[in-house]
Amino acid sequence: MSPRTQKTKANKMPFDFNVVILAGGSGTRFWPLSRQKRPKQFLKIIKDRTLIEETFRRVQGIVPSAQVYTVAVAQQSKIIRRLLPKVPAKNLLGEPEARNTAASLILASASIYLKNKEAVLAVLPADHYISDVARFREKLVAAATAAYQLKKIVLFGIPPVSPATGYGYIHCPGKMLAEIGGETFFEVEGFREKPDLPTALEFLQSGEYYWNSGIFLWRADVFEESLREFAPELFSAWMKILRFLRNKDRRELGKVFREIPALSIDYALIEKVSGALMARGDFGWSDLGSWSSLHEYLPQDDNCNAVSGKFVGLETNNCLVFSPRKLTALIGVRDLIVVNTDDALLICHRDQDQLVKELVEKLKEKEPRYT
Amino acid sequence: MSPRTQKTKANKMPFDFNVVILAGGSGTRFWPLSRQKRPKQFLKIIKDRTLIEETFRRVQGIVPSAQVYTVAVAQQSKIIRRLLPKVPAKNLLGEPEARNTAASLILASASIYLKNKEAVLAVLPADHYISDVARFREKLVAAATAAYQLKKIVLFGIPPVSPATGYGYIHCPGKMLAEIGGETFFEVEGFREKPDLPTALEFLQSGEYYWNSGIFLWRADVFEESLREFAPELFSAWMKILRFLRNKDRRELGKVFREIPALSIDYALIEKVSGALMARGDFGWSDLGSWSSLHEYLPQDDNCNAVSGKFVGLETNNCLVFSPRKLTALIGVRDLIVVNTDDALLICHRDQDQLVKELVEKLKEKEPRYT
Repeated sequence: MSPRTQKTKANKMPFDFNVVILAGGSGTRFWPLSRQKRPKQFLKIIKDRTLIEETFRRVQGIVPSAQVYTVAVAQQSKIIRRLLPKVPAKNLLGEPEARNTAASLILASASIYLKNKEAVLAVLPADHYISDVARFREKLVAAATAAYQLKKIVLFGIPPVSPATGYGYIHCPGKMLAEIGGETFFEVEGFREKPDLPTALEFLQSGEYYWNSGIFLWRADVFEESLREFAPELFSAWMKILRFLRNKDRRELGKVFREIPALSIDYALIEKVSGALMARGDFGWSDLGSWSSLHEYLPQDDNCNAVSGKFVGLETNNCLVFSPRKLTALIGVRDLIVVNTDDALLICHRDQDQLVKELVEKLKEKEPRYT
Repeated sequence: MSPRTQKTKANKMPFDFNVVILAGGSGTRFWPLSRQKRPKQFLKIIKDRTLIEETFRRVQGIVPSAQVYTVAVAQQSKIIRRLLPKVPAKNLLGEPEARNTAASLILASASIYLKNKEAVLAVLPADHYISDVARFREKLVAAATAAYQLKKIVLFGIPPVSPATGYGYIHCPGKMLAEIGGETFFEVEGFREKPDLPTALEFLQSGEYYWNSGIFLWRADVFEESLREFAPELFSAWMKILRFLRNKDRRELGKVFREIPALSIDYALIEKVSGALMARGDFGWSDLGSWSSLHEYLPQDDNCNAVSGKFVGLETNNCLVFSPRKLTALIGVRDLIVVNTDDALLICHRDQDQLVKELVEKLKEKEPRYT
């Protein structure tokens, strides 16, 4: 389906559809490319555009730019404004400090609630990758319609392709609740924290578990009701945020914000809600959680080397090379991740890239200027 | 023995002792540090000084600076002058073009011959490393004395520590010919080209074979006689070079030089001579033939990583890192050679560093500006 078709469809949608891009992440797993002041969503990792730009472009034609919002700490507004010039400045919601996604989404949902209580918002992390964009767009529109019509929180669950231990899982045995816009919506049975490997293997084999993608949709009024019913300790914060947004006193926002428990929206709300719906997120999703996760999305040479930059290899297989400015020559190596930036070089075995985080912690002590 | 003691001894030596530093090499095996215009002898590989400076300092106190000569293509005179300011400019023998070591040593020996036919010269490659300098100095003085007194070509044979296939071997079953200056000199039985691995293993086990170090000593007149007797096709070049040196016509040198067969002195003369002598070169010699050969000469951390530059490692062993300007972070790797220069990065398994040469050939076609 072409963007133009989508646009026509979107314009006909009988409800107010908004997108909230969660742009506040501060990942260290793409060090040395990512730094404290340049987190992953602002990097050009796979394409010529940054991940946040890709996220925005993915919904163009479905949602008018005036209905796209971003949430991030206020210091990042400048870079977001530069990367997403089509998004109105007033839609760049600036947080007084980073307090995890529950606070971000209370702020975003409240902002949209004041515009239209029945508006639907789709929450999209700014730093994910989706390879089948056309399919994603179709499914997103269907999910928004379901969220609007059924007045439920809707999630995308990713059919697992490995026994990953780094994700939360959605338990969804396959109880169909509705078919809307060609998409099936299932009842969510429950949520499971990041499992150990044997449990993850069971999940994978059962076919009843899905990775929690962090992509959610809800109506603003449904969000309010859910907070009231399932997360009362956040509901008072919601009321205060609404009051602040009506009064526009920034100092007050700082005070209210600091009172919100610094929790993820999953933990604080989603996992407590009864009656959430799930759709299958089979659109080539990746949260790009580590360097090695990139490999399959990059073009590869005959020896399965995925390379960005000038490269010569001898007897070298299955390496991932990121070196925009310098020649890289590899001899007799395999399964390496090589990232060469202006001031630092990382060489990491691809099976060990979960240690990049630990490395950055070590650097914070030893060589903080590189973090 | 301190340099001072050596100096006294040297001053008392009853013959004219000269050193010729062979500075014309153009190795590619230390790419990307070494380049066409910056060969290995001009690199600071192990110490804070370049290898040619180290070579010069190694003989200071034994041989006066006025008796140190260098041979290299004329274009390199400028850098040699800068690195060895104590060597008189007239001693920097400039070759019209690189024509291997036979031509270099005809030029050097002839220059010294015209000063004093009985002068001894010690030929030292500019790009080797010697860890036990005191022992080397003692042995060099003894070998010079033997070369002077016995009127023989004297070589240093390195007791092999591995079945190396990259060296020529000296066959020396241990027939002692003389004891001079505390050093034993043996008769050379013959020479063997670079062997295959089974042969190298036999050589190692027999105890009768030594690596040819490329360190030679001879009297100028003995060199002349050897050429006349064993390498007549070079003898006419020798005569022409002598004539040129008396007349000082640089254009003529170019013509004569181009007529000299481009052979190594080993192949053209040394291996043909009968009656050469060998002393044991047990002074921690290395020709630094590849990156991996450096490992044992560099300081290492607890995980056997030899590092030059800022470094952080996790689960990383036995790596060699050369990165003077950038931070290097290694995770989960072992046995890697990592060399990070201003414009190029090499990562090479240490068992495969003989492929660096092939890589440079590939680059000459593909990316010549990096060679």
